[in-house]
Formats: sequence, C-alpha cells, structure tokens
Amino acid sequence: MSSDIQTKFDFIKANTSKINEVDFENLTFGNVFTDYMLVCDFKNGAWEKPVIKPYEPFTLDPSAKVFHYGQAIFEGMKAYKDENDDVWMFRPYENFSRFNKSAVRLCMPEVPEYVFIDGLKELINLEKSWVKKGKGNSLYIRPFMIAIGSGVIAQPSTQYRFCVILSPAKSYYSGDVKVLIADYYSRAANGGIGAAKAAGNYSGQFYPTKLANEQGFQQVIWTDDATHTKLEEAGTMNVFFRINDTLYTAPTSDRILDGVTRKSLIDLAKREGIAVEVRSVLVDELVEAAKNGSLKEIFGAGTAAVVSPISGFQYKDEYIELPKIENSFSAHLKEKMTNIQYKIEEDTFGWTVKV
Amino acid sequence: MSSDIQTKFDFIKANTSKINEVDFENLTFGNVFTDYMLVCDFKNGAWEKPVIKPYEPFTLDPSAKVFHYGQAIFEGMKAYKDENDDVWMFRPYENFSRFNKSAVRLCMPEVPEYVFIDGLKELINLEKSWVKKGKGNSLYIRPFMIAIGSGVIAQPSTQYRFCVILSPAKSYYSGDVKVLIADYYSRAANGGIGAAKAAGNYSGQFYPTKLANEQGFQQVIWTDDATHTKLEEAGTMNVFFRINDTLYTAPTSDRILDGVTRKSLIDLAKREGIAVEVRSVLVDELVEAAKNGSLKEIFGAGTAAVVSPISGFQYKDEYIELPKIENSFSAHLKEKMTNIQYKIEEDTFGWTVKV
Ligand SMILES: Cc1ncc(COP(=O)(O)O)c(C=O)c1O
Ligand SMILES: Cc1ncc(COP(=O)(O)O)c(C=O)c1O
Repeated sequence: MSSDIQTKFDFIKANTSKINEVDFENLTFGNVFTDYMLVCDFKNGAWEKPVIKPYEPFTLDPSAKVFHYGQAIFEGMKAYKDENDDVWMFRPYENFSRFNKSAVRLCMPEVPEYVFIDGLKELINLEKSWVKKGKGNSLYIRPFMIAIGSGVIAQPSTQYRFCVILSPAKSYYSGDVKVLIADYYSRAANGGIGAAKAAGNYSGQFYPTKLANEQGFQQVIWTDDATHTKLEEAGTMNVFFRINDTLYTAPTSDRILDGVTRKSLIDLAKREGIAVEVRSVLVDELVEAAKNGSLKEIFGAGTAAVVSPISGFQYKDEYIELPKIENSFSAHLKEKMTNIQYKIEEDTFGWTVKV
Repeated sequence: MSSDIQTKFDFIKANTSKINEVDFENLTFGNVFTDYMLVCDFKNGAWEKPVIKPYEPFTLDPSAKVFHYGQAIFEGMKAYKDENDDVWMFRPYENFSRFNKSAVRLCMPEVPEYVFIDGLKELINLEKSWVKKGKGNSLYIRPFMIAIGSGVIAQPSTQYRFCVILSPAKSYYSGDVKVLIADYYSRAANGGIGAAKAAGNYSGQFYPTKLANEQGFQQVIWTDDATHTKLEEAGTMNVFFRINDTLYTAPTSDRILDGVTRKSLIDLAKREGIAVEVRSVLVDELVEAAKNGSLKEIFGAGTAAVVSPISGFQYKDEYIELPKIENSFSAHLKEKMTNIQYKIEEDTFGWTVKV
C-alpha cells in the first residue's frame, strides 16, 4: 500500500490466497470472493478508520436492525483489465453518489468519498490479479451498508457497517430472455424507496419473479403500481424499447432506479446518431407496436450484462415474440460500451477511472 | 424440558443468567433480551432440528442474502403473566399464520407449526421468570426469519434461519402522539409487500418519519401511494377513527398489515355495542369531521401499546388538535383488551393460549 493510503486505511494481511483454487473459466455469478474486503464502521456519530482485511464472516447480534428493519443498501459496479494490465472502474462516482442517495432515503449515514472511492481503488489494486483480461471477464464490485446496531424497536440504527467485497465475473445473463409484463405485482410505490438501491426492494421481487419463472419467463417487466399501464424496469435492469428507429426508455422517478448503464446508453446512442426519447412507454402502445411491426427491439440495461436483448413478452394472456433482426441497436451499443470499458476504443466521455 | 419436547428440540444450557442485572422498572423497549433463544435453520430443502440455546451473536458471510436483498420477515407478539403466575400468549396462531403469509410473499420457506408454536411455548416456559406480573409488564416476543445463504446474485436464498428472541417490556408509546398525514411519501405499493411483515417495509418509513419528528410529530399516518387520499395505517399500528359514535378503520389490502390488535378491537367493539365500519376514511372526510366537531377520536392499534390515542394531526399546512373527551372508546377498549390479556376478565373469545 502507498504510505498516503496507509494513513487513511488500516491493513490486515491475509496468510494465504484462494486465487489458485478458483476456476476462472467456470465462474457462476456472485459466488466467489477475493481474498480481501474493505470494512468501515459508523459508531458514535462518526466513521471509524476503514480497514482492508481478509474476507471473513460478520458477527452480529440477533437483534441487529438489518435483520428486523431492512436498513441495508448496496451498489453493483465493475472493473475491467485492459491489454496493458491496467484496471479501470466504470463511472464509480455515479455509484458513489447513488449510494449516498440511497443512504439518505434509508436514514443511514452518507459514506465519505475517501472511504468509498479511495477505498475501492486501494482494495481493487490489491486484488488486481483477480481481474482477468479479455471481453466478458470483469471484477464485480459490491459496496454495501448494513445497520449493525441492536434492538428490536422500529427506529433507525445508530451503528452501521460499510463494506466492499469483490467477485470475479463472467457474463451474467445468457440465452433467450422472455419477459412477463406485470399486471398485478409491483416493485415500488410512489413516494417509496424504488429509486434507492435498497435491499428491501429485491425481497419483494422474488415471489412474482418465481411465478414468472414457473411460466417460462426469465424476468418480469414492472409497471407503475397504480395503473399497471406504464412500462418501468426489469428485475435488475432498466429497459429500452426500439420502435421504428427510435429508442424509448422510462424517465427515472421515485419508483425507478437511475441506472448507470441506462444513462450511459442514452449518451452513447445520441453520439452514435440514434434517436432516444425518455418517456413512459405504455403497455398498450407496446402491444400495438409489436402487432404493426414497428417494435424492433426490447432490451434490458444494467451493470451485469450491459445490454440484455429480450426475445419476447407476455402480457395477460398473450405472448408476443419479437422478430430476429440484423444490426440491432442493442448489439451495436453493447459493442461500443464494452469497447470503452475495456479501453479498446477511446473513452471520449471520460467514464473510465484508473485504479 | 418435557421429554416430548426433547425429542423435537435440542437444548444447550446457559452457564449463567443475566436476569439479576436487569432493572425491570426501567426498561427501554427492545434492548434487553432473555438468556435463551430458539434457532432453527433451513438447509437442503428442509428444516433442521430446532435448538434452544444461549442468546448469542450470529456469524454470517458478508454476502449473506439478508444483507443484500432484504429477505427478512418478523413478528411482534406478547405474553403476559396472570395473578397465578401462569403465562399467556395472545392469539399466537394469528401471528403464526401471518408469519407464513409473509414468508410466502418473500419467497421464503414456511415455518412448521411445531417449530413456531411449540417452540414459543417451550422457550417462554424456560424464561417464565422474565415475565413480571402486573398490567403494563409483558414479555415481547420477536420471531424472525432471515436469508443466510451466501452469494450476491439477486435470487432467493436456499438457506434460512428462523429465530425467536424475547425481551421483557413495559409500555411502548408514551405522552401525546401527534401525527403527520403523508401527502408525498408512502410505505407500500399496490401489488407490493406492505401486507407482509417484511423488514424492507420499515427501512422505507424511517426517513419520512424522521422528517415528521423534526416537525414535532411522533408518527406518520400513511395514505395510499397512488392518490394520497385514503388513510391507511401508522408506523407500526393500524389506525381507528371515531366519527360521532362509529369507529372506522381501513380494510386490509396489499398495502396494509392485517394487525392482530386491529381485528381484536373490531370484535371487542362489536361485543361492547360500539358500531364499527371497515372502510377507507378519506383525508378530506377527516378534516371535515374534525372541523364540524364529529371527529371524536383517532387511535393507533398495535401489539406494542394496544391502543395509542392520537391528540392531533397535521395535513399539509394545517394542524388540527382533537378535543379531549371523557369516556373515550380507546380507553374503554384498551381496558377490556388488557383485562383479557392479563386474565382479569374472562376471555370469551378464546384468544389467550397458556404457555
Ligand atoms: C432495480 C434495478 N434497476 C436497474 C438497474 C441497472 O442499474 P445499473 O445500470 O446502474 O447497474 C439495477 C442494477 O443492477 C437495478 O437493481
Ligand atoms: C405496519 C404495521 N401495521 C400495524 C401493526 C399492528 O399489528 P399488530 O396488532 O398485529 O401488532 C404493525 C405491528 O406491529 C405494523 O408493523
């Protein structure tokens, strides 16, 4: 570690590394973690000194508030290795600022920049050998914060733990993705916490997603909870619709996560001369466009797979398969985006940050 | 332990008891726990043998799903000691069935009756000396379940922990309770998880409640998220409104917790000859009733305080203080209910279950 960093971070060395036990060709997403993690606790109204230390279990009281009141937020981001063995994070300041927005909404303390950003750099630097070269390989980064204070009274905790763990990854989604459009269940309320990356949002999605899986759909596209007429987002992705040659995606709101991939794709599409309109697409409009042939593509956008093409959708009793197309916007945008992420093409946006 | 129970539960004896260190006259809610807890893990598709063992911390992987995806549910119930030193639970089968409804909605396994109900009986029996006699004293019971499987992929866990911890309690709410009626924030979506006692629901309430606290209100009364016109429930209480001599309370729905106190008060009010109507009360209707003098009482209903009278409410820019009244329904119903709970009056409903 650099001496500048040593004054900001404590460091506890691991005795051994697990890296040689890992089969990097056959990774399942989110199950293997690197040797170190970053931990920083908040107590008595202040952040303690962050520590980088061996990945190890947490010891928490059974009454810890995270277990009872769901005060827990997270981020999902990635780092990529270029051909010169340099490692780059993608728009980490976006995740940092979203993390702190989530923190405010869940009544948790904001994490200082030196803990989040410098912490990420230092931790990833230490674990550089876990990041493999080549498109498709990446290091998935999971910053999260949980309420560790004890007591079963429904009030915000006074103690928190911020932690970052790292997991080497290959691409997340695979195969044809068929989606079910929600007509009863919802993921977020107006004035709720849908725009926060809050743990509780995901727990509510599992059951409706399981029902969809049982009917042969991989994902649910959520609609607004009041009318179920506006298409909003998918499980862990924002959603784009291509009607004729225009891309549409829902505006962010209280109910929708302000995805980093979504906003990057909007910028990239514009640069590539693709028309983008940020507005709600209605379910009826989608069905009609599918029927009259103007609906060309639907794709999800998220850190995991960058873009994930959707091959068809079910709405109520009707399943509509999308035509296969050549030169899809989704493939083009994915190519352009990953070229930036892996430093194959010039990053004219200044999105990549060296570790 | 009875030998019947020994075959169903493992038992690990504590070396010492903390009971003599506890000041039972000055308890703050939910901070002191008894010597034992019940733990039962779900692994490989089945519940393991439950164990009653000393209260102690959990050791969990940093990637445990409860930290990332909020798969966590709980119940809140109480036991009371009568004058013969017998301890009684209040309607535990209601909590048991609500717990399993929450489990289904969060894609978690249902807990078998012998684990939940027999487990409670056995655990509380062991901790009988922690339940003090006299109205106001009780044992707060916190069954909960968390996802303990590891892995940062947004999918339901395959491993869970069911646990029960016990906390001696005195009354929860105190003083005047002034409430703010929500006109922007919400706690639950249509088709969401508001009807489940899910940890994630509470994390979303903290921030709006903090804003209300800063304005001098102890609680928020939530309204429906789509229109903010229907009065729904408070932080951890259902809500009743008395207009003239009729009590109104919102019907349960996807957005509202089906409170045990609420349903008990409805039955009790009917028995006492008080008219009860289960229907949504509109904010406008409340303001009008307050102004024309027909609004007599508002009170919260929940396990913590049974009933908690509300002295006034703020809606947008207007604060309306309720007149003080004699012979309030809330005081009468609270008296009747606690008389049943403490076995002072006959339990004609069959609500109390001996430990
Ligand atoms: C609900 C939800 N929507 C959208 C996204 C996509 O966001 P991002 O592009 O920042 O990964 C995520 C993130 O994984 C998500 O959890
Ligand atoms: C959101 C909410 N509403 C209402 C209640 C009241 O339910 P009960 O009477 O079963 O305690 C609770 C429970 O504490 C709650 O958390």
